[in-house]
Amino acid sequence: MQGAKMAPMNDSHLHETPIASRTLHQGNFLTLQCDTVRLPNGQEASREYVRHPGAAVVLALTDDGQIVLERQFRYPVGRTMVELPAGKLDAGEAPLHCAQRELLEETGYRAAQWAYAGLLHLAIGYSTEVLHLYFAQGLQQQARQLDEGEFLDVYTQPIAAFLQDCDAQRVTDAKTLACAYYLLRQQAGLLSLDWQAA
Amino acid sequence: MQGAKMAPMNDSHLHETPIASRTLHQGNFLTLQCDTVRLPNGQEASREYVRHPGAAVVLALTDDGQIVLERQFRYPVGRTMVELPAGKLDAGEAPLHCAQRELLEETGYRAAQWAYAGLLHLAIGYSTEVLHLYFAQGLQQQARQLDEGEFLDVYTQPIAAFLQDCDAQRVTDAKTLACAYYLLRQQAGLLSLDWQAA
Repeated sequence: MQGAKMAPMNDSHLHETPIASRTLHQGNFLTLQCDTVRLPNGQEASREYVRHPGAAVVLALTDDGQIVLERQFRYPVGRTMVELPAGKLDAGEAPLHCAQRELLEETGYRAAQWAYAGLLHLAIGYSTEVLHLYFAQGLQQQARQLDEGEFLDVYTQPIAAFLQDCDAQRVTDAKTLACAYYLLRQQAGLLSLDWQAA
Repeated sequence: MQGAKMAPMNDSHLHETPIASRTLHQGNFLTLQCDTVRLPNGQEASREYVRHPGAAVVLALTDDGQIVLERQFRYPVGRTMVELPAGKLDAGEAPLHCAQRELLEETGYRAAQWAYAGLLHLAIGYSTEVLHLYFAQGLQQQARQLDEGEFLDVYTQPIAAFLQDCDAQRVTDAKTLACAYYLLRQQAGLLSLDWQAA
């Protein structure tokens, strides 16, 4: 226990070192992996996790201060979820390209300005997933281009109403709530964004 | 596209119905599942996902307004992460019991008051995980009881410093950032908590 002190920066006493790695199952979408690791105390342990290609998520704001949202049925949790537009990186795809592609495909919006706000690690206990968060503005609506078998509703909502939905548990998606944190900080002038033309 | 309107509440046009389910791999920790579903357009599709027992996460505040945090090496993402105390539900375990157990085991703190703040869905694309968020206060420090092979640092930090760490990307764990959202709202008086004695 360290009381009120900051966390130590040297973490060699926490580090786990890989010894061996094997694929338990190669699915169409998910790869289940089991690695043997050396623990800080010298003992061995196994680590099961899912390999994920990474993803991008977009906080797109309209000129009149509304946020672009989706409602999508998510089978693993068995319910329709409110979430920000997001999608997996294609092989070799740059995160910004993925963000722009997913926003257009899923919502029909193109954005003139983009700003990188940072990354999230989504499920650190059992997934390699890294999620790149972009803010987007200067939206122009075009036709959306959903993947075959993809069904989702798109809507826009004033920021205050979106935050009320988060507060009232009408939004429970962790990535969307994590982005709501950054949205609050950006609205409070505490997050400086470096806007770039698309 | 629905423009500025609210999302519709009837989502039958989004719903996916299970047709068949099979276990691709039963690991020690993770079970990989593949279900066949009926899409809204009548076609079939497969859904791969991980079965998870659910978990609890604790936002524990000391009497002098500090937050209890952990630094833990997370093998799937290959780095030491700053995160709130959290852990998986044991079979049949109530979320509050899990929250109290994990806080004590991992950090050595017992809390006199607890408040349920809601749930998060962690990785809705490929996991069933539901995470229950509790606020805790009235902390008393005892000895922690880490599981065999569990290594983590515990520290406390003033709320403002924790939020600065979130803003500066020293915190990138999605569940912790989602909880930081609720912390901001609670601090702003926008989240009413129903405190109960332990």
